[in-house]
Amino acid sequence: MLSRLAVVLLHHPVLDRRGEIVTTAITNLDIHDIARTGRTYGIGAFYVVTPAAEQQQLAQQIIDHWQSGHGATHNPDRRKAFELVRVVTTFEEAQQHWGETCGAAALPVLTSARTNGISFAACRDLLCDQPLLLVLGTGSGLAPELFERGCPVLEPLRGAGNYNHLPVRAALAIMLDRLYHATDCPLPTPSDT
Amino acid sequence: MLSRLAVVLLHHPVLDRRGEIVTTAITNLDIHDIARTGRTYGIGAFYVVTPAAEQQQLAQQIIDHWQSGHGATHNPDRRKAFELVRVVTTFEEAQQHWGETCGAAALPVLTSARTNGISFAACRDLLCDQPLLLVLGTGSGLAPELFERGCPVLEPLRGAGNYNHLPVRAALAIMLDRLYHATDCPLPTPSDT
Repeated sequence: MLSRLAVVLLHHPVLDRRGEIVTTAITNLDIHDIARTGRTYGIGAFYVVTPAAEQQQLAQQIIDHWQSGHGATHNPDRRKAFELVRVVTTFEEAQQHWGETCGAAALPVLTSARTNGISFAACRDLLCDQPLLLVLGTGSGLAPELFERGCPVLEPLRGAGNYNHLPVRAALAIMLDRLYHATDCPLPTPSDT
Repeated sequence: MLSRLAVVLLHHPVLDRRGEIVTTAITNLDIHDIARTGRTYGIGAFYVVTPAAEQQQLAQQIIDHWQSGHGATHNPDRRKAFELVRVVTTFEEAQQHWGETCGAAALPVLTSARTNGISFAACRDLLCDQPLLLVLGTGSGLAPELFERGCPVLEPLRGAGNYNHLPVRAALAIMLDRLYHATDCPLPTPSDT
């Protein structure tokens, strides 16, 4: 079970295609897809991070629709996925909330298509010891300042050649599948956490 | 390399949530995501199957925008992904076209969240011998008539519990990652095909 793993989708600070630090807009389908995939693989939480107040409102409207509005009765499976989602203002807020939820300090593991990093098996081993936050950037990826904090970075997903432009939704799905199947490390079950 | 693998995204005949056979609408983001993921893992082609003429036009407009319109200059990486995409009317048309492209009969491998099937390693072994079509359904999955043809079915992706509602875009990404890494079977390189 990946119940002590939280996914963090960052809309700031991230890079655009020219390498500038920006705040990206929330993509409706990112929230749906990551919530559904996260629920399928049994993660504990999914934090959507944006400092923009109107973007937070938009995300919350989407969540409310599927959690308690028309969507909840129309599609109960979607409601169950959206129970994972929480909108927060900063990365630090997500880290603090997940640590408090789990009752232990939560370690961020960053993701990047460009930086070398620890293996999926090593990441899963870390998860045996503590709650983790798997941090994914929108746009063209996490801003450099995040990599200056000394957190572990997960090895990049590599495809068949030089072309490497996975949607963040697809990358997250592959990561969860790999983490889930990485090793036989006995992760705590939900009742242990 | 998965260059002799084609992905087929079927909009008919598929099931809706009540188990009725329907034609689903094309989802813009399915085309983007599967094209990008497919290009990253080096597949040979991506067929979008719909019998609805106006849906074919819609899909072709999206493809043209990214292949030769404003999108092609704005985002050349997206153009490279969209080169894979071809809109066809029926599943049989995709099968015939992929066979002719590869110069050998193309074997369909069906996907399902409910039916047991061959392992990813076995599917990759099949790919060593012949071109394959990996067939995914939209809506609530492929119609029963497709499973009555005797084609192999790929084992379902299983998550952590009873909840299993992966978006088709996410399921495809996980499948390509697993197929790509399944075994060390020496697949033909593009120049061999």
